[in-house]
Amino acid sequence: MKALVVSPHPDDEVLGVGGTIARLTAEGSEVTVVIVTRGWEPLFPDSQVEQVRTEASEANKLLGVKSLRFMDLPVTRLNAIPKHELNSGFERLMEEEKPELVFLPFCGDRHEDHRQVFDACMVALRPGQGRKYVRQILCYETVSETHWSGPYIEPCFQPQLWVDISSQLPVKLEAMRRYKSQLRQHPDARSIEAISSLAKWRGSIAGMSAAECFIVVREHWMA
Amino acid sequence: MKALVVSPHPDDEVLGVGGTIARLTAEGSEVTVVIVTRGWEPLFPDSQVEQVRTEASEANKLLGVKSLRFMDLPVTRLNAIPKHELNSGFERLMEEEKPELVFLPFCGDRHEDHRQVFDACMVALRPGQGRKYVRQILCYETVSETHWSGPYIEPCFQPQLWVDISSQLPVKLEAMRRYKSQLRQHPDARSIEAISSLAKWRGSIAGMSAAECFIVVREHWMA
Amino acid sequence: MKALVVSPHPDDEVLGVGGTIARLTAEGSEVTVVIVTRGWEPLFPDSQVEQVRTEASEANKLLGVKSLRFMDLPVTRLNAIPKHELNSGFERLMEEEKPELVFLPFCGDRHEDHRQVFDACMVALRPGQGRKYVRQILCYETVSETHWSGPYIEPCFQPQLWVDISSQLPVKLEAMRRYKSQLRQHPDARSIEAISSLAKWRGSIAGMSAAECFIVVREHWMA
Amino acid sequence: MKALVVSPHPDDEVLGVGGTIARLTAEGSEVTVVIVTRGWEPLFPDSQVEQVRTEASEANKLLGVKSLRFMDLPVTRLNAIPKHELNSGFERLMEEEKPELVFLPFCGDRHEDHRQVFDACMVALRPGQGRKYVRQILCYETVSETHWSGPYIEPCFQPQLWVDISSQLPVKLEAMRRYKSQLRQHPDARSIEAISSLAKWRGSIAGMSAAECFIVVREHWMA
Amino acid sequence: MKALVVSPHPDDEVLGVGGTIARLTAEGSEVTVVIVTRGWEPLFPDSQVEQVRTEASEANKLLGVKSLRFMDLPVTRLNAIPKHELNSGFERLMEEEKPELVFLPFCGDRHEDHRQVFDACMVALRPGQGRKYVRQILCYETVSETHWSGPYIEPCFQPQLWVDISSQLPVKLEAMRRYKSQLRQHPDARSIEAISSLAKWRGSIAGMSAAECFIVVREHWMA
Amino acid sequence: MKALVVSPHPDDEVLGVGGTIARLTAEGSEVTVVIVTRGWEPLFPDSQVEQVRTEASEANKLLGVKSLRFMDLPVTRLNAIPKHELNSGFERLMEEEKPELVFLPFCGDRHEDHRQVFDACMVALRPGQGRKYVRQILCYETVSETHWSGPYIEPCFQPQLWVDISSQLPVKLEAMRRYKSQLRQHPDARSIEAISSLAKWRGSIAGMSAAECFIVVREHWMA
Repeated sequence: MKALVVSPHPDDEVLGVGGTIARLTAEGSEVTVVIVTRGWEPLFPDSQVEQVRTEASEANKLLGVKSLRFMDLPVTRLNAIPKHELNSGFERLMEEEKPELVFLPFCGDRHEDHRQVFDACMVALRPGQGRKYVRQILCYETVSETHWSGPYIEPCFQPQLWVDISSQLPVKLEAMRRYKSQLRQHPDARSIEAISSLAKWRGSIAGMSAAECFIVVREHWMA
Repeated sequence: MKALVVSPHPDDEVLGVGGTIARLTAEGSEVTVVIVTRGWEPLFPDSQVEQVRTEASEANKLLGVKSLRFMDLPVTRLNAIPKHELNSGFERLMEEEKPELVFLPFCGDRHEDHRQVFDACMVALRPGQGRKYVRQILCYETVSETHWSGPYIEPCFQPQLWVDISSQLPVKLEAMRRYKSQLRQHPDARSIEAISSLAKWRGSIAGMSAAECFIVVREHWMA
Repeated sequence: MKALVVSPHPDDEVLGVGGTIARLTAEGSEVTVVIVTRGWEPLFPDSQVEQVRTEASEANKLLGVKSLRFMDLPVTRLNAIPKHELNSGFERLMEEEKPELVFLPFCGDRHEDHRQVFDACMVALRPGQGRKYVRQILCYETVSETHWSGPYIEPCFQPQLWVDISSQLPVKLEAMRRYKSQLRQHPDARSIEAISSLAKWRGSIAGMSAAECFIVVREHWMA
Repeated sequence: MKALVVSPHPDDEVLGVGGTIARLTAEGSEVTVVIVTRGWEPLFPDSQVEQVRTEASEANKLLGVKSLRFMDLPVTRLNAIPKHELNSGFERLMEEEKPELVFLPFCGDRHEDHRQVFDACMVALRPGQGRKYVRQILCYETVSETHWSGPYIEPCFQPQLWVDISSQLPVKLEAMRRYKSQLRQHPDARSIEAISSLAKWRGSIAGMSAAECFIVVREHWMA
Repeated sequence: MKALVVSPHPDDEVLGVGGTIARLTAEGSEVTVVIVTRGWEPLFPDSQVEQVRTEASEANKLLGVKSLRFMDLPVTRLNAIPKHELNSGFERLMEEEKPELVFLPFCGDRHEDHRQVFDACMVALRPGQGRKYVRQILCYETVSETHWSGPYIEPCFQPQLWVDISSQLPVKLEAMRRYKSQLRQHPDARSIEAISSLAKWRGSIAGMSAAECFIVVREHWMA
Repeated sequence: MKALVVSPHPDDEVLGVGGTIARLTAEGSEVTVVIVTRGWEPLFPDSQVEQVRTEASEANKLLGVKSLRFMDLPVTRLNAIPKHELNSGFERLMEEEKPELVFLPFCGDRHEDHRQVFDACMVALRPGQGRKYVRQILCYETVSETHWSGPYIEPCFQPQLWVDISSQLPVKLEAMRRYKSQLRQHPDARSIEAISSLAKWRGSIAGMSAAECFIVVREHWMA
C-alpha cells in the first residue's frame, strides 16, 4: 500500500502518525511524508530551520519513511497564499504520489496552518474519475493543537479508527526524541510522557496496549 | 471475512446493505443476516408474518447469504424489553457469530426499533479482550426511516464509507422485488426507483455508477 | 413574489435551484439570478469565459429568468477581497433587488468561493428595519461541492424544505444541458444522471416524483 | 389554513405558540389545540385537574381557538405507554385533523413528556402519499423546559422562523394570566415578565417589537 | 463547599472524580457520594453485592468522603422505573444534601443507567427559587463507558474544566485498587495504567502533571 | 481577581459583559477592557472615531473599569493582518495583563472581526507553563451579531454560565446610553429594550431578575 502523511510542520507527522508509519513500513507499505511549511527569516533563523530539517530526516528514517518531501511554504502564512495556488500545489502532490491512504491534520486544530492544509488537501482529494487511487482519508491528532480548541463551538476530534501500535510505541517515542528542538519537559503537552500517555489511554479503550486514533474522513471500497 | 448484518425488520438488510452483501458473498465472505423482530397477533396475522419470512429467505438467498437468523423479538416493542435482556441477546449473538464486519441500523432512524437495536448492539460490541474479532462497525441507511428525522435536532446520517455496487445494483433491486409485501409504487420512499436513485446519486459523489454508503462507527487495525 | 438566486459560478444556480426557479417563474414570480464570479486570464481564457456566459444566458432563459446579472468578481479569489468591499457589494445588490426569497450556496460546501458568498450575503441580509422585504433565506445543494466535505467535522447539509419539481425536472435537466462546458459524463457528479437521481431520491422521501431540497436559514412572518 | 398545536400539558400551547395562534385565528385560520396529558390521582386531585381544564378553555377561547381537544394520556407516564399505541393515537389525530401547519414541543426539552410527544408525532407525520396535507412542521419553545437542557450535549433550540406577534403579545399574556394555577411570580421562568422579555428579545433580533420563534422541522411546497 | 457526587454504580465516582474528591476534602469541602444502583439476585449474588459495598466504603474513606449513601435502585433497570418516581427520588436527595457542586455521569455514556441518572438529576436540578444553593453542575468521564459511544452520532465528551490532581493521583489510584472486584489488568480500560494515562494526558493539555476533566453543564454566579 | 474583556468594537464590552464588569469592579476585581479595532478614513471620519472613543471612556468609567486600552487595529480588516502578527499582538497583551478571567467575543458571531479576535485570543491563551494565571475563558453574546448566524450550520451560542446582574442592570443600561452613537430605537436589536429583555429572559431561566450568560470555553482549577 502507498501512504502519504501531510504534516504542516516538522514533528506533526511523528506526534500524530509516528506509530502507524512505523507499522505500515514494517508491513511493507511505502510511506511518503510531506512537510508543508518552513520557517523564514528573521523569525526563524536559517540555522534553526536547518537543524529541524536534520531532525526530521533522522526521525523519519527511524520510522522507515523512504521519501521525505519539503514543500517549503511559509509557516503561519498559508492563509495569505491565494487559494488556487495552495490547492494546485497539493493537487500536483497527489498526482505525483497517487496515495491509497492519506493522513491529514485535523480541521479543528488550534493552528491556522493545520486548518489551511486540511482544506487544501480536501480540495485536492475530491473524489472522481482521476483519483480512483485514494482508499482512505484520515485525520490525525497533534498534541496539543488538536485539544486546545473551544469545546463544541469548534470542530471536535472524535476518532473512529484505532490502530494498535503496541509494538511501535517505542520507536515512535524514539523518533520524537530526535526532534530535540521540539520536545519539551513533562508536563508539557509536547513531552514524551504526554505522547506516551495518550497512546496508552487511547489503546485501553479498545483493549490495546497502545494506539493511535484517527478520524475516518472518507473511505472507498473500489469495484 | 465474516460479516454480520443486523436488520430490525425484514427488508432493512436489503435496503441498506443489499449491494454490499452481494459483493461480499461474491468475493468469498461469509455473511450472516439477523432479522431482529417479528410481528405479533392481532396486528400482524401469522400468515402475513410467514409470507414476509418466505420473502426474506428468497431475497437473502439471492444475495448469497448462507445464514439467515430470526431473533423473533416483538416488533415495535423492543423498548419494553428489559435492557439487560436485550443486551444479553445480542451479546450471545456476537459470541456465536464472532463477526469481523458488523452492519447496524442507524441510531437516528425514525423507527424506535432501529434505535434500540443500535443501542443494544453497541453494548454487545464494546471493545475489549474478549471481542478482538471485530474490525469494523458500520451503520447503514434505510429508506426512509433514516431520512425522516428532524434535521440537526436528531442525529443525522453523514456517511464516510462509499462501497461501489455498480455490478451489484441489479441483484440488490431484484432482492428487493422479492419483498413483494414491502415494496411500494414510485414515488414512495420504498420503491425500486427510490432505492435505485439513492444508489446512483451516492455513487456519483465518488465517481461510481452506484454505491451504498455507511457511517464508520468504529474500525480497528489489530496488531 | 420576488426571488434572488446567488450563484458563485455559472451553473450552480441550475444544479441547486433549477427546478424551483422554473416553478417560481411559471407561477408568476420574478426571479433574478446573480453569477458572482468570472474566470480571469491566463487560467481562464476570455473565449472560454464568453462561452460559459452564453450558456448561462440560454440556460436561465429556459428557466424563465428575466434578469441575469454578473458581478464579475475573480473566481477562486473571493477571500482575497477585503471583507467590507465584498459585503458592500452584496448589500447594494440586496438594496437594488429587494428580494422576498433568497437562495444562497451552502456555507459547508467544499469550494471556498461558496463559503465566502454565503458569509457576505448573510452580512448583507442581517434582519432589521431596512430589510423588511426578506421573507425566507434558503441554502441550496450543489453537486457535489456540498457532498465533498468532511462528515460531522464540517457543516453538513440537512435540508428542511422539500420543493416538488416533478413537472420541472425535464426543464431543469434541459437547462443543465445548455451548460455544455460544465456537464460531465455519468458517473461523474456533474452528470445528468447524477442530477436526476438526486432529484428523484430527495423527492421519494416526501412522496414526490422529484424534489429540490433546501436548508431554511431564516424565515420571517412579517406583521 | 388549518393548524394544529400539540401541547403536552395545559399552558405549553400558550407559552410557545400563544401569539401565533391569536394571529392565525385573526387571519382566518382554523386552529385546533390538543392537550396530550392529564394529571391523575393521587398526585393530581381531580379538582385540580378540573381547574386547569377550565383555565385551558378560557385561555384558548381568548386566542380564538375553536377546537380544544384532550387526549387524557397520563402525565409523566408517556414513556410507559407502548410505542405503537402512542404512535397510533397521534396517527388517528392527524387523520382526523389533516392539519397543514403543525406545532410540536421540542425534542430537546427537559421534560420527558415533551420528548415522547415530539417522537410520536414525527412518526405520525412521516411524509408520504397519505399525508400530503402537511405543509410545515414547527417546534416551539416552552419556558423553561426548552432552556434547562445541557448545552451542546442535548439537542439545542436554534430557531429559523420569526413570527411577528407585536399586535398579539397582549392577548398572549392575557391568555397566560387565565392559567392562574400555572403562573408564577417574577423572576420565575413561568412569569409574565419572563414570557414578555423572551418575546421582545426574540423580536429585536429581526426588528420586530415582539416575536415567537420556531424551529422549522419540515416544510413542503406541494406541486 | 458542599459537593455531591452521583455515581450510577460503585467505582464510577472514583474513576471519574476520585482525584477531585480527594482534593476537595483535603481543602475542607464536605463531599457526599451517592451510589445509585445495586445488583439483584440471581444475576448479582448478595455476597458479591456486599463485597463491592465494602470496597466502596474503603475507597471513599480513603478519599475523605464522610457521607456515602446508597439509593439501592436496581442496576440496569433504571429505565423501567416510572420517570416521576425516579425524578422524585433525586429531588429528595437534592433537598437533603443542598449541594453547591454536583458531579453527574455523562448523558452520552454507553451504559443506559448513566443516561437515566443524568436525566433524572437534571430534572431534579432545574434552577429556580428553591434551588439557589447549586453553583456548578459538572459531568465526569468514566473509563470507558464515556468513550464507547458512536462518534458524532451520540453526544460526545468535550470537557471545559481542568482540575489539577497532580498531588491526588496516587490516592485516586489507591482508592481504585480498593475496588478489587472492578479492577482489570492492563490493557483493559478499567486498569490502573489506563486510569493513570488518562489523568496524565488530560493534564498535559493544560501543563499539569495530572488532571481530571469535566463538562461544565451549568454554573451560577449568585447575587 | 484580574479580569480582561476583549471587545472587537466599542460597545461590545457593554452589550456582552456590562453588568458583570460592574459586578466585578464593585466586588473589588480589577477589570481591563481592550477595544481591538478603530475606524479609518474615509469610511469612518476621525471626528466620529473620536466621539465613539469618548463614549467608550464614559461608559467604561461608569462600570468601574480602571484601564481602558485601544489596540487600534483596522476595523473590518482583521483578516487581512498576517496571522502571526495578530496572534503576537494578543500574546503581548496577555503577558502584560496576566488576567485570571478573560471575556472573548463568540467565534460564531456574524461579524468577521469577532471571529478573528476569538481565534487570535485562543492562540494567545493556549494553556501551558507560561500562562498559569488564566482560570477561566468565557465567550459573551453581542446583540445581535451572536444571533444572526445560520442555525446549526454555524456555531451556536449555548451558554453554561449565568451571572446574576439584578443589581447591575441599571448601570449596564446607563453605560449603554453613553454610547449614543451606537444606540438604536426599539425594536432595533441594539436598543435599551432589547438589551434589557435579553437580561431579564436569561435571568428568568435561573430564577434571577436579570442575568448575563456566557459560554465556558475553558476553566482551570490550578493546584
